[in-house]
Amino acid sequence: MAKKKILDYETVALDDEKNALVIIDQTKLPYEIEILSLTVQEDIWRAIYLLQVRGAPAIGVAAAIGIYLAARAMIASDMNDFYEQFKKAKDYLASARPTAVNLFWALNRMEEVVKDNMEKGVDEVIAMLHDEAVAIREEDIWVCTQIGENALTLVKPGDGLLTHCNAGQLATVKYGTATAPMYLGQERGYGFRIYADETRPLLQGARLTAFELHESGLDVTLICDNMSASVMKKGLIDAVFVGCDRVAANGDTANKIGTSVVATVAKRYQVPVYICAPTSTIDLNTATGDEIHIEERPAEEITEMWYKERMAPEGVKVFNPCFDVTDHDLIAGIVTEYGIARPPYSNSLQEIFNRKNEASKNKSK
Amino acid sequence: MAKKKILDYETVALDDEKNALVIIDQTKLPYEIEILSLTVQEDIWRAIYLLQVRGAPAIGVAAAIGIYLAARAMIASDMNDFYEQFKKAKDYLASARPTAVNLFWALNRMEEVVKDNMEKGVDEVIAMLHDEAVAIREEDIWVCTQIGENALTLVKPGDGLLTHCNAGQLATVKYGTATAPMYLGQERGYGFRIYADETRPLLQGARLTAFELHESGLDVTLICDNMSASVMKKGLIDAVFVGCDRVAANGDTANKIGTSVVATVAKRYQVPVYICAPTSTIDLNTATGDEIHIEERPAEEITEMWYKERMAPEGVKVFNPCFDVTDHDLIAGIVTEYGIARPPYSNSLQEIFNRKNEASKNKSK
Repeated sequence: MAKKKILDYETVALDDEKNALVIIDQTKLPYEIEILSLTVQEDIWRAIYLLQVRGAPAIGVAAAIGIYLAARAMIASDMNDFYEQFKKAKDYLASARPTAVNLFWALNRMEEVVKDNMEKGVDEVIAMLHDEAVAIREEDIWVCTQIGENALTLVKPGDGLLTHCNAGQLATVKYGTATAPMYLGQERGYGFRIYADETRPLLQGARLTAFELHESGLDVTLICDNMSASVMKKGLIDAVFVGCDRVAANGDTANKIGTSVVATVAKRYQVPVYICAPTSTIDLNTATGDEIHIEERPAEEITEMWYKERMAPEGVKVFNPCFDVTDHDLIAGIVTEYGIARPPYSNSLQEIFNRKNEASKNKSK
Repeated sequence: MAKKKILDYETVALDDEKNALVIIDQTKLPYEIEILSLTVQEDIWRAIYLLQVRGAPAIGVAAAIGIYLAARAMIASDMNDFYEQFKKAKDYLASARPTAVNLFWALNRMEEVVKDNMEKGVDEVIAMLHDEAVAIREEDIWVCTQIGENALTLVKPGDGLLTHCNAGQLATVKYGTATAPMYLGQERGYGFRIYADETRPLLQGARLTAFELHESGLDVTLICDNMSASVMKKGLIDAVFVGCDRVAANGDTANKIGTSVVATVAKRYQVPVYICAPTSTIDLNTATGDEIHIEERPAEEITEMWYKERMAPEGVKVFNPCFDVTDHDLIAGIVTEYGIARPPYSNSLQEIFNRKNEASKNKSK
């Protein structure tokens, strides 16, 4: 298959000529850049299952394109027959990663199109599914772009920016969330100096973030997670940008393990920490971070590197939490597609949602 | 060769029956416990060169035993002849790790024995070299034991203790420095819960500290360096004990990279951080941590795990400092063999040296 530089492609795309889902195989990074062009339902299921495509937004978009391509291949006598087949294909794709919320969200949104248009013809509904998949994808690009534009107002050319884990282009369609200001700045010649935490245990920072920024020509320096104080003490970091898994109503933010360590160190060195958060990750029904359940993952992620070579004694106990919660007092701002929330977050996050609802009303008018 | 549990042996010992230097091969840990019994000068040189024995105190003791064994094998017509051969053997052993200060310190101390006794017979001087090597070794055990006793006054049974890197038995003859209170507590049934940072990039915490504590039957849990906030927020940690490479006159402490990150996080969660420091590592001629040069190490330590498998894109920039400096305001106490220094350190460290000088005077009386 063709090999190209990452910025020649977005992470997830629809090829309308070949009727294919086009993705970068993330299981091969950083060794090899391989672009997959998937047309068969089983291959798309496998790509999601094997994490060849990963990152909540990217998975959602891949599923939307996947179910459209599956629908396109159906031979149906009428809409009822079509809908029956559609539901089977949806359940099948949903089974690829049963814990991925965005997967269900995207598939449900696609199903709504079918349910709302049962009186139309099959071909017409397939065309509408195409447009809905494209819309889901474009909305993702819009959200990341807006987050990038808003985040860009917080920094200046030449700044040193630190990020943790991969809230990058490889987790979305384009630009990423935490990396969005970096890419937009790059397009405008801002000359940022980026520092990427390697992010143990799974090293998404080294394998994915350092990879995508380096491939895209940005000035990126890889550090271990325990070197944040060293670079901040040297005055190399002007701001920290990270993504998030969930933001509570008071601004407490769950993100990849280690985020709260970086934020604590940043506070000591008076470096502002910004959470890049699509409004879809802000949950006003979660009062504080204490309500967020922290998943623990297998010990082997720490004791056996890549599950191949043993790094620690057999039988040793391991604590391997997947996330940590960064308390709101460590966060200088939460950057969304509808603006930047500032402390106190209980007010400012509500204001963000008011703006979102307003925009949504104007759109539907 | 024989395989035994680590606590059956100290890290470095002299076997007087076989006239052998006995060490645990640390390059095989944590996969395999292999005890080496080395009699030939070239094998001892190789053991130091290959890091089969590592850790400043352990290297010093190994060198002292090594030069004694070399001296024992010399065939000399008189003391002048013996001293010429001794100097050659000393230069040879010193070349095994030219940057290891303790190696030179121990070899110089052994040379003093020869220089001060040129009027005596060769056999008598060899016997004195034996006793000096044994004394150097026993002094190391005494220093670690005293540090452990002093540190033990800072904690109580059942406490959770966190450590970073390996300032353990494997770096000394017995007990280690940061691990000394853990082992002494274990002997007294204190039931500590130990948390060991894996310590990227070389993973000494996972490979060595978790190994030696686990082998010795202590309750040890391995975490990644970026999980310190998670365990402290849960209230699992009552104190942090770490070793050090150099302590400045104001208490600023250089230690393995990441120590200052742990200390910053500990401050947020009001967990006291104690530096376990033999007085030999305290340098009152270094005013502050700013004067301590931080060595940078090869990028491959971060980008290629075990120099075998690539973890980051080819060509990416890497910052890989070996140490960081923990500012004195983050340190609750500096535990030495002559007591615990408390802030302000400019006074209390001088007081420690006064005590040491007093003890030394009493000893020579």
